[in-house]
Amino acid sequence: MSTAAYKVIGTRPVRHDGVDKVTGRALYGADIQMAGLLHGRILRSPHAHARIKKIDVSRALALPGVEAVVTSADLPDPGNRIAELGEGAVNMRHLSSNVLARDKVLYQGHAVAAVAASSPHIAEEALGLIEVQYEPLPPVIDVVAAMKPGSAILHADLKTEEVGGAAKSDAGPTNVAKHFQFKLGDPAKGFAQASVVIEREFHTATVHQGYIEPHNATALYNADGTVTIWCSTQGAFTVRAQTAELLQIPLSRIKVVPMEIGGGFGGKIRVYLEPVAALLSRKTGKPVKVLMNRTEVFEGTGPTPGSFLRVKMGADQNGRLTAAEAYVVYEAGAFPGSPIGPGCMCIFACYDIPNILIDGFDVVVNKPATSAYRAPGATNAAFGADTVADEICEKLKIDPLDFRIKNGAKQGTRRADGPVYPRIGLIEVLQAAKATAHYQGPLTAGTNPSFPRGRGVACGFWFNCGLKSSCNASVNADGTVSLVEGSTDIGGSRTSIAMQLAEALGLRAEDIRPMVGDTDMVGYTDVTGGSRVTYATGYAAYEAAQDIKRQMIARAALIWSVPAESVAYEGGVLTCKSDASKRLTFKELAEKLHSTGGHIVGRASVDPPGPGGAFAAHVVDVEVDPDTGKVNILRYTAVQDVGTAIHPSYVEGQMQGGVVQGIGWALNEEYFYNAKGEMANASFLDYRMPTALDLPMIEPVLVEVPDPNHPFGVRGVGEVPIVPPPAALANAIYRAVGVRLRTLPMSPGRVAKAVLEAKK
Amino acid sequence: MSTAAYKVIGTRPVRHDGVDKVTGRALYGADIQMAGLLHGRILRSPHAHARIKKIDVSRALALPGVEAVVTSADLPDPGNRIAELGEGAVNMRHLSSNVLARDKVLYQGHAVAAVAASSPHIAEEALGLIEVQYEPLPPVIDVVAAMKPGSAILHADLKTEEVGGAAKSDAGPTNVAKHFQFKLGDPAKGFAQASVVIEREFHTATVHQGYIEPHNATALYNADGTVTIWCSTQGAFTVRAQTAELLQIPLSRIKVVPMEIGGGFGGKIRVYLEPVAALLSRKTGKPVKVLMNRTEVFEGTGPTPGSFLRVKMGADQNGRLTAAEAYVVYEAGAFPGSPIGPGCMCIFACYDIPNILIDGFDVVVNKPATSAYRAPGATNAAFGADTVADEICEKLKIDPLDFRIKNGAKQGTRRADGPVYPRIGLIEVLQAAKATAHYQGPLTAGTNPSFPRGRGVACGFWFNCGLKSSCNASVNADGTVSLVEGSTDIGGSRTSIAMQLAEALGLRAEDIRPMVGDTDMVGYTDVTGGSRVTYATGYAAYEAAQDIKRQMIARAALIWSVPAESVAYEGGVLTCKSDASKRLTFKELAEKLHSTGGHIVGRASVDPPGPGGAFAAHVVDVEVDPDTGKVNILRYTAVQDVGTAIHPSYVEGQMQGGVVQGIGWALNEEYFYNAKGEMANASFLDYRMPTALDLPMIEPVLVEVPDPNHPFGVRGVGEVPIVPPPAALANAIYRAVGVRLRTLPMSPGRVAKAVLEAKK
Repeated sequence: MSTAAYKVIGTRPVRHDGVDKVTGRALYGADIQMAGLLHGRILRSPHAHARIKKIDVSRALALPGVEAVVTSADLPDPGNRIAELGEGAVNMRHLSSNVLARDKVLYQGHAVAAVAASSPHIAEEALGLIEVQYEPLPPVIDVVAAMKPGSAILHADLKTEEVGGAAKSDAGPTNVAKHFQFKLGDPAKGFAQASVVIEREFHTATVHQGYIEPHNATALYNADGTVTIWCSTQGAFTVRAQTAELLQIPLSRIKVVPMEIGGGFGGKIRVYLEPVAALLSRKTGKPVKVLMNRTEVFEGTGPTPGSFLRVKMGADQNGRLTAAEAYVVYEAGAFPGSPIGPGCMCIFACYDIPNILIDGFDVVVNKPATSAYRAPGATNAAFGADTVADEICEKLKIDPLDFRIKNGAKQGTRRADGPVYPRIGLIEVLQAAKATAHYQGPLTAGTNPSFPRGRGVACGFWFNCGLKSSCNASVNADGTVSLVEGSTDIGGSRTSIAMQLAEALGLRAEDIRPMVGDTDMVGYTDVTGGSRVTYATGYAAYEAAQDIKRQMIARAALIWSVPAESVAYEGGVLTCKSDASKRLTFKELAEKLHSTGGHIVGRASVDPPGPGGAFAAHVVDVEVDPDTGKVNILRYTAVQDVGTAIHPSYVEGQMQGGVVQGIGWALNEEYFYNAKGEMANASFLDYRMPTALDLPMIEPVLVEVPDPNHPFGVRGVGEVPIVPPPAALANAIYRAVGVRLRTLPMSPGRVAKAVLEAKK
Repeated sequence: MSTAAYKVIGTRPVRHDGVDKVTGRALYGADIQMAGLLHGRILRSPHAHARIKKIDVSRALALPGVEAVVTSADLPDPGNRIAELGEGAVNMRHLSSNVLARDKVLYQGHAVAAVAASSPHIAEEALGLIEVQYEPLPPVIDVVAAMKPGSAILHADLKTEEVGGAAKSDAGPTNVAKHFQFKLGDPAKGFAQASVVIEREFHTATVHQGYIEPHNATALYNADGTVTIWCSTQGAFTVRAQTAELLQIPLSRIKVVPMEIGGGFGGKIRVYLEPVAALLSRKTGKPVKVLMNRTEVFEGTGPTPGSFLRVKMGADQNGRLTAAEAYVVYEAGAFPGSPIGPGCMCIFACYDIPNILIDGFDVVVNKPATSAYRAPGATNAAFGADTVADEICEKLKIDPLDFRIKNGAKQGTRRADGPVYPRIGLIEVLQAAKATAHYQGPLTAGTNPSFPRGRGVACGFWFNCGLKSSCNASVNADGTVSLVEGSTDIGGSRTSIAMQLAEALGLRAEDIRPMVGDTDMVGYTDVTGGSRVTYATGYAAYEAAQDIKRQMIARAALIWSVPAESVAYEGGVLTCKSDASKRLTFKELAEKLHSTGGHIVGRASVDPPGPGGAFAAHVVDVEVDPDTGKVNILRYTAVQDVGTAIHPSYVEGQMQGGVVQGIGWALNEEYFYNAKGEMANASFLDYRMPTALDLPMIEPVLVEVPDPNHPFGVRGVGEVPIVPPPAALANAIYRAVGVRLRTLPMSPGRVAKAVLEAKK
């Protein structure tokens, strides 16, 4: 179906939850109120690394108003069990110890105990009455140092897991949890064919997703052993699965009600407060609400890893890449699980390179256990690859977009980790970037004629995924359809899913009344993540529409006394092929359902294979204040293969949001640690995220290469726009001031220092 | 399938909502809390009949804390529109005028205006500041007087609607809204064949359903024109439809969230507060909660009609009924709509009589508009027919059960209103009643040897209905199934529906996690009424199970690489017909769904034809204190064809509850009106319902004649047990004291007076 044929897809209706959101009616996790509600607070470790020798909660329990205190002793010991929790295998000992520390605390902010009291103030006061005896240990903060022999060790029993071609390491105590190796072709031979070889080292900082809404959880543990949890999460079913495993109770005893969510970006998949609220509620028999403040979010939840990379790429005289190598080390934080895998898969994913060797390491350090963050692992990686590529272009005097068009991945290209690309749109994206007025035009004017200016280019890849989604849709007598879907709505997906249902049924977007279901209300649905919701839950909506259509056709056939094969359904109208006078609109038939056999409900549970991957190319013009090192972004154009844009405004919004987060990584954001492993900037005053005042309009250019495996060609759009900005900005800064920055963030101080050193 | 083959059906598992109910966790309508909630109160008419000349709300609006006042002027004028609201045709002018009076008030307690204020106390105070100028009119309280020429007229434009063979009435102003006539055979000829003819007149009082929980509604009218209503209702979809019609907004703009409900018995189908709360919320932009107190429930909601009946029956020498006639007048209350239709259909429905004439009248009077009440219309009717039958038995010296066995309706019997019975179980019920130890034994011992004692027998019929039901069911990875169904659960139907899903899937009742959906969450489902829920929503659960089974079979076929036809599903186990080594339990396959194509959701919307009808026969022993007239019930046995008893405890509970309500009608309950049409006993202190102290254990005897049209033979059980008690008790009282009482309630004063008069 060509885009032109769509009636709903590609339009920009008002989102169904829009008024609720702008009028403040929408209920987020913290808005839950209940009779007899208790308030929980978490006691957190002041140490980055310490042994817990003793916890005495007696004084806290004696404080009037305190109803319960829990520690890890209240959680069943999970042993070294590995659980399949929908989002892949999880080491339950690690997950459990992150929720409430056992034996050791592994980062400043690590949860140690929790209190439930009649007011949040009493709970807060009670925290100060819990006596914890710590034996401080030397903190391990730097990921490269953590790998070295003699480093302090976080987990005495940790062994390196080798994946792919990685060589077996010795069996001594280590902080290296995993070693990936991917190999393609013959890298040594490839580098021998190269006329230009560039090898560089990079460092990136630990950064946080910075969602507006802090974590929260309210639980009511009922006397019958069932528990209801209200929380803001990217995946209600994942919270259910994790909590069931952590508490060792059956899945179906838990109902998770997803409230509205104020951002997640990957950081609201792992549970923190949910099991604690459940434990406190079980102990007290009352509902318990636990909220984090911003400092707790920074210190106690998963940021994305800081990293070290060494990247080497070679090209021949014609600018054809011949080989690439990467040595990539990601911070896992306190427990194994950095996105080193995707990082290694993405690092050269934009390029068609015959010979590749990639070594990746997942290394634990005394920082919070890292979480996913928008295209997890890909941004760090692209910073390395796409600045090295830029140096090659410079050396060979090739336009950086021409270079990427020449070397760009396309259908049939094999990635280093194995897969061969299906239909993808990178070349179209690069050509569209080249054709933009921005790229064709001169450097954008700056704010001060004496500031040097430059233009940078970079590209990026993210997989996007399919996974499982469900929805139910019931036909109302007024010709509208009530849709219950299982994906929590972070970026407007209620509407993008409803639009696909509408398109499939020949209705208007406004005819659909979408809602997000809780875990008892809708079929299993994986997390809102992986850019999958509009793709996979939209796919489920399409299938539910087919289920409705089949039943509507059967009903019309019954009414007309003809076989179902004689009924056609198109554009929301049912017609009888054998009698042109017989015709019913969807609305007309909906009115008749009541008297012709009852109403109609459609349902679908799908597990589609996933789209072919998303590619982006960004162009940015900057100026640099040479005295302060401040980088001003003058113009920013983001080009992306978005597959079919269901609701273009939300696609543009995703692209703009992703770029802004990438700019934050590039120029300002970092966890600033002192030598004791204490985060010195755990507030939005000191952790500097870009604001609207720091940015020009981010100009999105949508390239639509429909995914052939999705009924509407959806490809997923949310993550890849965060990938290119650090590399694009580093390249632009270089063109402005002649200095290549290889450490993130490229903050004013760091830029000024680099410029000063280059002048010497 | 024989009962013996069932694994779940017929067992007595703990109800899924049991702990919530007994621990007070269950949330009823009044439990709704919300930030910024306003409190609404209703101003009600002090007059039974008056013209509204003027309403001045200015002083009420000026009271600090008052945020809005609404009157009927805020409701769109519906004209004389007839709307199909799922439960049949509704005159919208009547429904609207009952919600907020227009022009006239038609009963004491009729809603006139409503206030929303920051506290219930301020709202209450503001009611006193609303100035209503009334022009009082003569009240019409007695239903027989209301039919006479010269009676005051409630509705100037009311015309009698003739149904069936009823003769056309003259066109003058009238209080008779409807005249039914049903005729079978040749009644004159039939009476000519009779050797015994008895004709008697009966009066029954207006009685209330007396549900524990008063009416309530909370509404939030959003800025986008959508409204959410939380309330206790027998049918969320009906509230949605009625409110949409009353407010003239599209159906799909309204979401109705059914809270737990503390009884309904037919009285919580019509809307009272829901549209008022919505109007107040629309005016204020805030959520508004409106609650009734008990007096408002009595005076302002629909009781069941008082009635007048003249019943004539004739039998030949052999005790064979030859003819019957009835003249039946039911109070409609303020607006047309008494259950005169069902009353006329039920009055002789237990008997196979060749010649019948029934005239029924629906007559408006200045009492609250009547509502359905458990087997609506049937109890009044049976009181007449089954006491006349008892006189015939006495005259012919025939055992009353033998008489009914001889004359009882059976498969093939034609009812006066037309239908011919399918397979029904009355004869089996009568035989079972005769076989009980109670009936075979001597009169039960009394409390005082000087009190005369007697035994009475009566039977009763109720249709039971099918109607529309929907449910969705999703398979969880732990092998349980989450079930969302559309029927509000009054009597344990979550469990009786879940048990049918479990039976159909070969699971345990505990493996199902049922919940009641709101109107956006589940497909259209008709009201919880007509004894239909376990029948029809259970039917939907059965169909949803088939939908799941088909998908589970397909999945097993995929896993085993065999065609679906080669997979058998039985008793919750999937086997491969061609390879005995291939076997998966439901739970094992549920665990595999995740990795084999995604989860599975089943759905169904059904509109089954309805079961064959329910019959009951009751035996009661009483003693009568001849001085006070107080009737003590010594033993009570209720025998009933329950079809298949899904959960026998709830069937027994329905039978016991119905009997107790019937006893209330029989012995104590009545709206006591003074000459001005004011109810003098609008509280539970003065409106005397039976308590546990008034009653022996009601002994239920379940006769199971499965309905052949339901997959599990469900027949519906909730209503018919209320039908026989008044006649059974009147017959027992007669056997004790020799006096036939023909006016309900047979209260101590009335019994004493009758005994005294008989002695004269």
